[in-house]
Amino acid sequence: MAEVFERLKQPAVVGEILAGVIIGPSLLGWVEPSELLGIIAEIGVIFLLFMVGLETKPQDIIRVGKRAFLVGTLGVIFPFVAGYGIAMWWDGSFVEAMFIGAALVATSVGITARVLGSMGLLDRETSRIILGAAVIDDILGLIILSVVSGLGTGSVDVTAVLKTAGLAIAFTVVVGLFGSRIMTWLAPRIDGLRVNKPFFNIGIILCLGLSVVSIYFGVAAIIGAFLAGMAMAEATENNPKVHQLTSGVTEFLVPFFLVNIGMQLNLSVFRDTNVVVLAIIITVAAVITKFIGGGLGVLGMSKREIAQVGVGMIPRGEVGIVVAQIGLGMGVISQPFFASVLFMAVATTLIAPPLIKIFFAEDTDKDGIMDEFEEHDVSDEYSRIG
Amino acid sequence: MAEVFERLKQPAVVGEILAGVIIGPSLLGWVEPSELLGIIAEIGVIFLLFMVGLETKPQDIIRVGKRAFLVGTLGVIFPFVAGYGIAMWWDGSFVEAMFIGAALVATSVGITARVLGSMGLLDRETSRIILGAAVIDDILGLIILSVVSGLGTGSVDVTAVLKTAGLAIAFTVVVGLFGSRIMTWLAPRIDGLRVNKPFFNIGIILCLGLSVVSIYFGVAAIIGAFLAGMAMAEATENNPKVHQLTSGVTEFLVPFFLVNIGMQLNLSVFRDTNVVVLAIIITVAAVITKFIGGGLGVLGMSKREIAQVGVGMIPRGEVGIVVAQIGLGMGVISQPFFASVLFMAVATTLIAPPLIKIFFAEDTDKDGIMDEFEEHDVSDEYSRIG
Repeated sequence: MAEVFERLKQPAVVGEILAGVIIGPSLLGWVEPSELLGIIAEIGVIFLLFMVGLETKPQDIIRVGKRAFLVGTLGVIFPFVAGYGIAMWWDGSFVEAMFIGAALVATSVGITARVLGSMGLLDRETSRIILGAAVIDDILGLIILSVVSGLGTGSVDVTAVLKTAGLAIAFTVVVGLFGSRIMTWLAPRIDGLRVNKPFFNIGIILCLGLSVVSIYFGVAAIIGAFLAGMAMAEATENNPKVHQLTSGVTEFLVPFFLVNIGMQLNLSVFRDTNVVVLAIIITVAAVITKFIGGGLGVLGMSKREIAQVGVGMIPRGEVGIVVAQIGLGMGVISQPFFASVLFMAVATTLIAPPLIKIFFAEDTDKDGIMDEFEEHDVSDEYSRIG
Repeated sequence: MAEVFERLKQPAVVGEILAGVIIGPSLLGWVEPSELLGIIAEIGVIFLLFMVGLETKPQDIIRVGKRAFLVGTLGVIFPFVAGYGIAMWWDGSFVEAMFIGAALVATSVGITARVLGSMGLLDRETSRIILGAAVIDDILGLIILSVVSGLGTGSVDVTAVLKTAGLAIAFTVVVGLFGSRIMTWLAPRIDGLRVNKPFFNIGIILCLGLSVVSIYFGVAAIIGAFLAGMAMAEATENNPKVHQLTSGVTEFLVPFFLVNIGMQLNLSVFRDTNVVVLAIIITVAAVITKFIGGGLGVLGMSKREIAQVGVGMIPRGEVGIVVAQIGLGMGVISQPFFASVLFMAVATTLIAPPLIKIFFAEDTDKDGIMDEFEEHDVSDEYSRIG
């Protein structure tokens, strides 16, 4: 499917997600979503964000910090308010409406990162704003989720919410600020290890380790993986092998992540016209509010750049699904809302990549679409053959 | 642990297996063997054998075919007879004795391949004899297992056994003989694909695809993966990226394979002196009979080479465990025998790597222990830094 979509000049990710829709329970039913597939998918997106982190130095994000903060914040407020409003208007309960708002919040940066990475555009300013905003977005999403989960169980513990938020922010800031210095200081020691491929092995340990720690601090595992990559970005800048080896893992596992998203789509919602209408309204609102919220954050940049940031924030993917699942598990979200959020999550993920490709198109390197991760190749003549 | 063992000038694999023993249920109990870990471990060893296959052209194996056949066959007969004899003498039933014999048969070529690969010695004649013998060994093991499983259920269906054997042999021979030609013919077409890293992606599909097909034909998945690698060896000979990318996956997943073996060890058998004696007798017999059987197969070569082949065939690892588990599941193997086979499987896997290192030591490239897979690096200065 990736090959078919590349030939149609469409993003390969869309093909891979659609492959999931096709082989999943909605259509052919060859493969059911399972815990195992979910875990492999999660490891895949963890390595993807680790790889994106390897391409991103902390200063790159700090430099765009103010803008990223605005994009992240406004890109959270607009969709939340829209989701809340739509659910209230559609006869949802207050708690239900809060959950739908929360489910519309979090951007799935993996999709955008994959598309930008395969276009070789991760070093663009707008790409970095998107990456920084995704971190802010995730922390805000966490705070909102802890508030609405409190509402779901009947009471909001303000101290607990503040503690969660404080820990998440502290973890991100500390690792973001000091991680890179520590790894640069450790680099000669890592180089002195006797195991094969010491930097890659330390990278795996750091990536998986910070993913676990970030879950402990309430942030998504992919944020920990991204911070781990960023911490190693400077130490491995002249070390193409770490990128190559990581790229091997990513190339193998990321399709599982994409197919797994596709498999979540529940086409049976289309049997009920009401749900179809709700799903479409929520999806349209999710696209527009994120585009406007994200775009407003970079007001003052060129129209093109505003559009780039706007579309880059659209995909919701797995994060919205997780929020909806929590709500369903608590018994506060009804099936039509759950089905609509699932549809929105997959639909935004399918809509965004072509838009990203269009708005970033002219920025692509003249020699065509090129893998960012290939840039480090010493063996240029082989860069595509691999 | 890999680092510690490298510093002690011992094989890293031993450190990694011991890590599994330490964190597993026998000692600290931090991690229990689970289906998920088992699957990740299996994918790890599948990629390891795929990678070994990428370094091995079909002619390399065909050239040593006669010797490999003798090594494989004699290396099966000796341990089988020994296992059967010991179990009968230890008051085992006839069926039980047949199962113990079968559990002693199959070499776990993953361990040997890992050690030889990390020493850069996969291209030695003796390495190729070991690889070829492992294929023969696996097919004979399959035939024996289908016979003893028949005994376990009460009747041996000779037609079914012959059919199983015929399919397994036909599959291996057909893929071994024609796979490489087909892939060489397809190479320009693969090169024309639009997806990123086309050869690596086709490699993954072929590796996982042939693993599944080989299970369908009754052969181990790793044999399918090895054949897949061998089929692509010629087509990707001048393509270092395929090796690099595969190496990334291997480096990430193989430790799960090794740790998972270590976790199977059940140290509680040592509470019963009788079982300790049985476990030690079976282990000693497993080591000696495989060494002699394998060594006899290459009689006429130098003493050193005979020893190299002999020790290379010693590790039993996961295969013996699987046979014992089948016997346990059928209720024909008693706990003491099961525990002893588990012990033998892990112990042979721990004993073999240092022996392999000793007998192959002088063959190592002068510039020290070097990763075979690094040889393809264009970026030599980075080869160890990765």
